[in-house]
Amino acid sequence: MQASFNELLPKTAANHEALTPIQFMERTRYNFPDAICTIQEGYHNQPTQYSTYREEYAKSCQLADALQQRGIQYGDCVAVLLPNVPAMLEAHHGIPMIGAVLLSLNTRLDPKTIAFALNHSEAKLLITDMEFSETVGAALQLVDNQQLIVVDHDDPLREFPNKGTRLGSLEYSDFLRSGNPDFKWSFPRDEWDAIALNYTSGTTADPKGVVLHHRGAFLNAAGNTMTWALPKKAVYLWTLPMFHCNGWCFPWSICAVGGTHVCLRKVQAEAIFKAIADHRVTHMCGAPIVMQTLLNYTGPKTHTHSVSMMTAASAPPAAILEKMGELNFRITHVYGLTEVYGPAVVCEWHDEWDGLSMEAQAEKNARQGVRYPMLEGLMVADPENMKPVPHDGETIGEVMFRGNIVMKGYLKNPKTNAKDLANGWFHSGDLAVVHPDGYIMLKDRSKDIIISGGENISSLEIESVLHKHPGTLDVAVAAAPDPKWGEVPAAFVTVNEAGPCAGQTTDQVAATLKAYCRENLPHFSVPKHYFVLKLDEMPKTSTGKITKNTLRAMAKNYVEQGQLKPVAATQSKL
Amino acid sequence: MQASFNELLPKTAANHEALTPIQFMERTRYNFPDAICTIQEGYHNQPTQYSTYREEYAKSCQLADALQQRGIQYGDCVAVLLPNVPAMLEAHHGIPMIGAVLLSLNTRLDPKTIAFALNHSEAKLLITDMEFSETVGAALQLVDNQQLIVVDHDDPLREFPNKGTRLGSLEYSDFLRSGNPDFKWSFPRDEWDAIALNYTSGTTADPKGVVLHHRGAFLNAAGNTMTWALPKKAVYLWTLPMFHCNGWCFPWSICAVGGTHVCLRKVQAEAIFKAIADHRVTHMCGAPIVMQTLLNYTGPKTHTHSVSMMTAASAPPAAILEKMGELNFRITHVYGLTEVYGPAVVCEWHDEWDGLSMEAQAEKNARQGVRYPMLEGLMVADPENMKPVPHDGETIGEVMFRGNIVMKGYLKNPKTNAKDLANGWFHSGDLAVVHPDGYIMLKDRSKDIIISGGENISSLEIESVLHKHPGTLDVAVAAAPDPKWGEVPAAFVTVNEAGPCAGQTTDQVAATLKAYCRENLPHFSVPKHYFVLKLDEMPKTSTGKITKNTLRAMAKNYVEQGQLKPVAATQSKL
Repeated sequence: MQASFNELLPKTAANHEALTPIQFMERTRYNFPDAICTIQEGYHNQPTQYSTYREEYAKSCQLADALQQRGIQYGDCVAVLLPNVPAMLEAHHGIPMIGAVLLSLNTRLDPKTIAFALNHSEAKLLITDMEFSETVGAALQLVDNQQLIVVDHDDPLREFPNKGTRLGSLEYSDFLRSGNPDFKWSFPRDEWDAIALNYTSGTTADPKGVVLHHRGAFLNAAGNTMTWALPKKAVYLWTLPMFHCNGWCFPWSICAVGGTHVCLRKVQAEAIFKAIADHRVTHMCGAPIVMQTLLNYTGPKTHTHSVSMMTAASAPPAAILEKMGELNFRITHVYGLTEVYGPAVVCEWHDEWDGLSMEAQAEKNARQGVRYPMLEGLMVADPENMKPVPHDGETIGEVMFRGNIVMKGYLKNPKTNAKDLANGWFHSGDLAVVHPDGYIMLKDRSKDIIISGGENISSLEIESVLHKHPGTLDVAVAAAPDPKWGEVPAAFVTVNEAGPCAGQTTDQVAATLKAYCRENLPHFSVPKHYFVLKLDEMPKTSTGKITKNTLRAMAKNYVEQGQLKPVAATQSKL
Repeated sequence: MQASFNELLPKTAANHEALTPIQFMERTRYNFPDAICTIQEGYHNQPTQYSTYREEYAKSCQLADALQQRGIQYGDCVAVLLPNVPAMLEAHHGIPMIGAVLLSLNTRLDPKTIAFALNHSEAKLLITDMEFSETVGAALQLVDNQQLIVVDHDDPLREFPNKGTRLGSLEYSDFLRSGNPDFKWSFPRDEWDAIALNYTSGTTADPKGVVLHHRGAFLNAAGNTMTWALPKKAVYLWTLPMFHCNGWCFPWSICAVGGTHVCLRKVQAEAIFKAIADHRVTHMCGAPIVMQTLLNYTGPKTHTHSVSMMTAASAPPAAILEKMGELNFRITHVYGLTEVYGPAVVCEWHDEWDGLSMEAQAEKNARQGVRYPMLEGLMVADPENMKPVPHDGETIGEVMFRGNIVMKGYLKNPKTNAKDLANGWFHSGDLAVVHPDGYIMLKDRSKDIIISGGENISSLEIESVLHKHPGTLDVAVAAAPDPKWGEVPAAFVTVNEAGPCAGQTTDQVAATLKAYCRENLPHFSVPKHYFVLKLDEMPKTSTGKITKNTLRAMAKNYVEQGQLKPVAATQSKL
């Protein structure tokens, strides 16, 4: 072995640079300055807004400079609470341009959760859309950092432009104007440095902050273009919220191919179909709820071209795939987690499947699939001994990820990091089997996540709220099937006979608890169904652990047959 | 600034892995084991050979294991001298699987140059095709390493399977069989470690060894898929030699999209058209000589589908672009050097150019263009003060590259590395201007500039004028010594047998072209000498680049001795 090849040729400034996805927009701005970067549709006959790459790049630079002028430094956190608007795309570029970390907040969160994220992340500045000023105003009451700079995004294209109050002393467009459009950004000091932070409701009551880095964001942005064979100048419709895991890295992927971002503040069927036809949308992403929304729409669907759609969160049923096909949508099924930059697994299509019946095709496409090109390892294994399960379609194991699109870790959470990144693999907590052709298929979630309209809801989070109500003695929350949302939370409670709910009817208990949840949880997390059980009716293991499988079966039974029947406890899988 | 985001979240085995392009083939083998990976066409009615990803991946693993069994270690060099055959694809995977460095030798080199490369690289093993056993046998006489292991590739699909002698004690297929097809390869210890070595003669007498690393090869392999918007399962015809700068990284790019490599041992028009039609080839690369070869072919051209072709080395003239378009070829013009992993600049097409005349389109497409998505910096600058030239289309500067697809450096050449990678940029030695739209256009190699009476004359500019004349098929311009002006331009032309100069004497051709140049060029740029050559007399490198060194020597010979004599082509830069 000779040293000449490896030891004797060190990195230099000429041949090594930190990977970062923000350079994609700069490149397209250079090559195609007049190409349309963003299109924003208005409400109530407000005019459509078009913005070129020249303009969006200049705004991103202005944002970076304005942040720096306000004292935001490398490694500081900047939070945004915005719907799918051009400012959100600017945030994905301007904030990392100065090495700051983008925290995207879900616009449907409750004040407490927003405050938790702002406190835990030590955010220095918040850009918030005025549509949400009531909720955010309440959150700000709970924020520790009295120096938090608040920038209000006063979007004239929001549904009710006169509603909402200013929470800070700065308005976003003025803030931008204070920055230099010719600001020269620097590459990150290290590609391992953080680019984004996303809070996810995990197994604990407190949300966990997933930290992503420039290297991984660059790679998955490129991985998206390869996985979808994304054509140049794709026209991408934002039906997926950009605050969800950085829009799965598509804010960067679309800029990489010089494409157009079509922004809608609200995901509504009429606006989607209109945008698809008006702008010749070629690509979009979304949870199955988006597909259902589209299929339920009875108004005009005038597009005649084919639209590629990526869907995640749960497997698309055959009927939906078939109907979407009739509407000229071609569905790609992906799977991932915030911890792996969004999609890291894709159900790669085999040409020979085209010849199968629609039902058989749906069965193939219901599997989560195989690893993304930028993920180095994917396995389903026994977490006890790390042994991969056989490819028999039956043996259940935990889905594990390894490689460059696995997160840096959870913010300020060394214990969980040590556990979840143990033995060289990220332990997802999702349970799956591997089919003989190597495609994985999810079977269950050990963390009991409820997926409702594309939102990941932690049952534990809801339980911890219900537990706090003095009327409850014991509580458990599980997913109930729902025709519209896919799943909704269902609450099973035992009433505290010494509390305020003693002697109430089931309807009264439900009303009390529902009102309480509405005050303390994001809207989408509030359980739809409430069942009152006697203490000994709550299905439990011998060690006192509630068997969620049984609760899910009970809820399903109720939804399908209109009555709650005890179900024999099945053996729990893990 | 808080430490939580950057300092406190270190890399772990779960979330950091060395980037390497060899994982693409492994992924496709996993996802689509039965997809066709290679197709090799035979000669003289020998049957076409098909090989699946399962088979090619197993062979690559066998190669890796066989090499390791022979004592090849991490950081050792393994040389191959092979035409475009499946074994060459296996070499691009099996050799780096054990951290060894792939040296691809040009099959048209002379024994001395081959021996130089084997000695300089300290190659431990050589895989050599028996078609070249005479040349390689002579080279082996000059090799220092008496322990060099020679593996003969006895390809039954070569043109004359009975010709050629064994040079070593091992035959390639036996050698593969000695390896384990289930060999488990390891990721590189560091993505900065070398994956390949390519010799380029550069401007000095001794060839320089360009060392490329896993990180850059991975990135440019992905960059190719993005730049070309490469579809899944592309069918790629190998008209570009794989030994030329690792086939510009396409051995890895095509595997990344699960595509098929169509291999021809020789690039001949009939075989190309047959392969395009038989296998529905979608993509291919090649120097302009390949286009000329195709256009001159008068036999059947039966394909009706569109083929995307990337071309490099020199700008495609309008007439050729137009004729290629009529044959259903869509041309993408790229530019690069071995030092930047092949193409690092691309003439990104603007849709609005479609509306221009064919001539105007060719003029746009003659520019080299803009940086690849994986190249972080491209500029044309004054090498003295590193100041970028204005975007005026006139001021000439040196093309400089910066970023992750710039080579590690030249092997055992610290002086040249210090010079060529100085000031944070790789200095290419190519001269160019930047047009107002930011697209660069090559003007010349520094040494190809003709200095006449104090004027800097670009030979490319004269060539582009001569190309436009309907009487020419191929043209090249080089400096001839001149007692009065120091240097004058000399034109070397091949006559278009279907054009107005067909059947003319050299003097008539000279008069015609001189008159045309006078109309279209500054007076001092009009060539003084005109030489008519047959197409195969034009001195070219193995990759179709005209060797200006040879032309200069011919012109000098003519001026000094009054006659034009062919001069042996010297080994020139790739």
